[in-house]
Amino acid sequence: MEAELKEMLKDLESLKSLLPDPSHLSSINKLQSRVEHITNMAYSTPMRRSKVKDMSAEVVDSNPYSRLMALQRMGIVNNYERIREFSVAIVGIGGVGSVAAEMLTRCGIGRLLLYDYDKVELANMNRLFFRPEQVGMTKTDAAVQTLSDINPDVVLESYTFNITTVQGFDTFMTSLRTKAFGPSKEGNGVDLVLSCVDNYEARMAVNQACNELNQVWMESGVSEDAVSGHIQLLIPGETACFACAPPLVVASGVDERTLKREGVCAASLPTTMGVVAGLLVQNTLKLLLQFGNVSPYLNTLSVLDELLPLFLSQGYNSLKDYFPTMEMKPNPHCSNGACLERQKEFLLSKPARDAAAARARMEAEAALVAEGPLHDDNEWNISIVDDSDVEASGAAISDALPEGLTRELPSADHFQKPQAAEPSATIVDDLEELKKQLEALNAD
Amino acid sequence: MEAELKEMLKDLESLKSLLPDPSHLSSINKLQSRVEHITNMAYSTPMRRSKVKDMSAEVVDSNPYSRLMALQRMGIVNNYERIREFSVAIVGIGGVGSVAAEMLTRCGIGRLLLYDYDKVELANMNRLFFRPEQVGMTKTDAAVQTLSDINPDVVLESYTFNITTVQGFDTFMTSLRTKAFGPSKEGNGVDLVLSCVDNYEARMAVNQACNELNQVWMESGVSEDAVSGHIQLLIPGETACFACAPPLVVASGVDERTLKREGVCAASLPTTMGVVAGLLVQNTLKLLLQFGNVSPYLNTLSVLDELLPLFLSQGYNSLKDYFPTMEMKPNPHCSNGACLERQKEFLLSKPARDAAAARARMEAEAALVAEGPLHDDNEWNISIVDDSDVEASGAAISDALPEGLTRELPSADHFQKPQAAEPSATIVDDLEELKKQLEALNAD
Repeated sequence: MEAELKEMLKDLESLKSLLPDPSHLSSINKLQSRVEHITNMAYSTPMRRSKVKDMSAEVVDSNPYSRLMALQRMGIVNNYERIREFSVAIVGIGGVGSVAAEMLTRCGIGRLLLYDYDKVELANMNRLFFRPEQVGMTKTDAAVQTLSDINPDVVLESYTFNITTVQGFDTFMTSLRTKAFGPSKEGNGVDLVLSCVDNYEARMAVNQACNELNQVWMESGVSEDAVSGHIQLLIPGETACFACAPPLVVASGVDERTLKREGVCAASLPTTMGVVAGLLVQNTLKLLLQFGNVSPYLNTLSVLDELLPLFLSQGYNSLKDYFPTMEMKPNPHCSNGACLERQKEFLLSKPARDAAAARARMEAEAALVAEGPLHDDNEWNISIVDDSDVEASGAAISDALPEGLTRELPSADHFQKPQAAEPSATIVDDLEELKKQLEALNAD
Repeated sequence: MEAELKEMLKDLESLKSLLPDPSHLSSINKLQSRVEHITNMAYSTPMRRSKVKDMSAEVVDSNPYSRLMALQRMGIVNNYERIREFSVAIVGIGGVGSVAAEMLTRCGIGRLLLYDYDKVELANMNRLFFRPEQVGMTKTDAAVQTLSDINPDVVLESYTFNITTVQGFDTFMTSLRTKAFGPSKEGNGVDLVLSCVDNYEARMAVNQACNELNQVWMESGVSEDAVSGHIQLLIPGETACFACAPPLVVASGVDERTLKREGVCAASLPTTMGVVAGLLVQNTLKLLLQFGNVSPYLNTLSVLDELLPLFLSQGYNSLKDYFPTMEMKPNPHCSNGACLERQKEFLLSKPARDAAAARARMEAEAALVAEGPLHDDNEWNISIVDDSDVEASGAAISDALPEGLTRELPSADHFQKPQAAEPSATIVDDLEELKKQLEALNAD
């Protein structure tokens, strides 16, 4: 439309040269000023936020990052600005993926890779994010439009193809490997993959890619009856992969389009999908920015090890407002070859990891004893989790699922260690207690 | 802009009459067609969704309600279309209230009353809903703009004033009482009030209005460090009011603006606020549409009684993904006079309620015994909760709060019955068991 308006100004100018009569000239001048007015109205009224070079903690109404940088002042995150260094891939820009993308964009993530091949329909309007005027656009184009308006600081890449086709899967793998952003980083081109797809084949494709690339990912899903959902952290070789264990409360293996052909569709609610997206991105932030850790000596272990006791698989049953948590170990008989390779690597590196953990722990304990209680007033409810107790409680294997969860697929060979809703770690409230235990050990 | 374009067409027409030369005429015709083209681009490109008279379950891409009506086919909700009969007031259109408003709009709620006196700022962009081009608009105007585009079927009313001033409080009370929608309904003009405010005074104003009007409401809040939140159902006379018990994990009593003047602000995250909004609206839907009930005989009691064992106060600590639930009884020494009146009314009506409940229960049990197990395959995880066990477990009073929650204000005189994270009701898995118990009772 802008081009059209410019052309009009040119046409009016040439018309002017043809008409020497001053009365005509004034008419054309009036027309020109109208065109300029329309141009101004169309292109300068909507205030667009300009890019922000550095994240500032300054408390002014015009600072889009003040409430996020306040997380540092509150002692929640050590270095919030690091969020700009991370790349996150979101596969499936539907009811969960689109909201997750918006949350990460508003949080100021560095780079987002968006994968979807579907178009926006009015039938999607019962979930957050897409607007009726975007109907007919690809979900990736519509998402880039909305997200770049919200936060122009985020680097957005859209991939409009089906990752379950042979060619699509190859392109998917290549895009995850490519280090367009932070080329000096180790590993792949992305820090985390979020799976927000609605069918079994797509989940298996994400699983395959992440197993092959040794890429940490999180899986999410909402049940077909719209009232339950889950998120799950998958670390190749260390936790169960998607092929190791049957999925919990996942939409069934049937593709949405097959259902639609039969004249039925799955139910969905913006509430359940919003809660699942919120839990998914909250855990993404915890993983990337390393917060939510409960223990100073766990801090010295790797980010992923720290997260293990906090979050592995989070369910949500909205009928009961019930949130069971469980841990899933990999299946040594998994059908996925890449998963078995990652498991072998993880086992081989175990002695080195154990030694490093023990060393870090001893140092931290010694420092604590020397310095005295660190968290005496304990403003942020920080408590110390004894690592060995986590493992001990994990040994109490039960085949039962937490109440309210059902298996979607038949049981796999190995489906291990469901845990209670609360992390079953023993909390050492009192550092004096810890000191006494250490002294008792020394006395022996 | 449309008027400006029309004026241009007129100007061009009058210019035509002044110029007899055919070569000039063609130039002007070209200009006219450009203006028409621009008008079309500006006013017909964005597809606006038209109003929908009746909610249909038809599975076509153009039906915005197909995935919601599917809740009926899935057996979750009996009559989804009833959502159009309800009015919900949302006080505070910030990080939680705006998302709650969007969720209810997308769900097709009948009427939304939106209260806020603040303006949109760039500093709000770290939460969902508002867009940078809305900066400077009142939050109510910006919300009406976005929500009416998303779903023109919803009746939107905006109230741009501070409910904590004397005049504001009066207008607030009048607006809640006014039966503009469903005038034949009993009670007030709204079915539910959602409090999504960020300060103590505003919460006390909502509490006062709802106590005076005997109006059921839900309170919500997010902590200043952005990682915890809560929702709470308040039924005047039946549950604790906001003055009965100190709030849990609420933002402190300090007004946001006071903090800002001091150069500090509270942290906030779109994730925590999205989760709290999702839990709030999910429970709003359960309350209005009467689903999520676990027992057939509880169905015969009032909607509110059904909800009591399911949801009273829901906390969320994102650092641990921990969701404690607790029940709060009213304080017989509450400082709020209207609360004490509602408590008296509730006590006076107790014998009648108990008798009705007992009758309904006996009838339901007799029907169950006669018909045999209803939920043998139990596809939706429906289980029967024994009401008496809920009360029995409630008797085990403990002063301790669930782990991870702290009191923001000093303890009130009476702060009753914190419960475990899981509803502590005994689940009767087997209807045969119930039958045996009834037979044993008869044998005595």
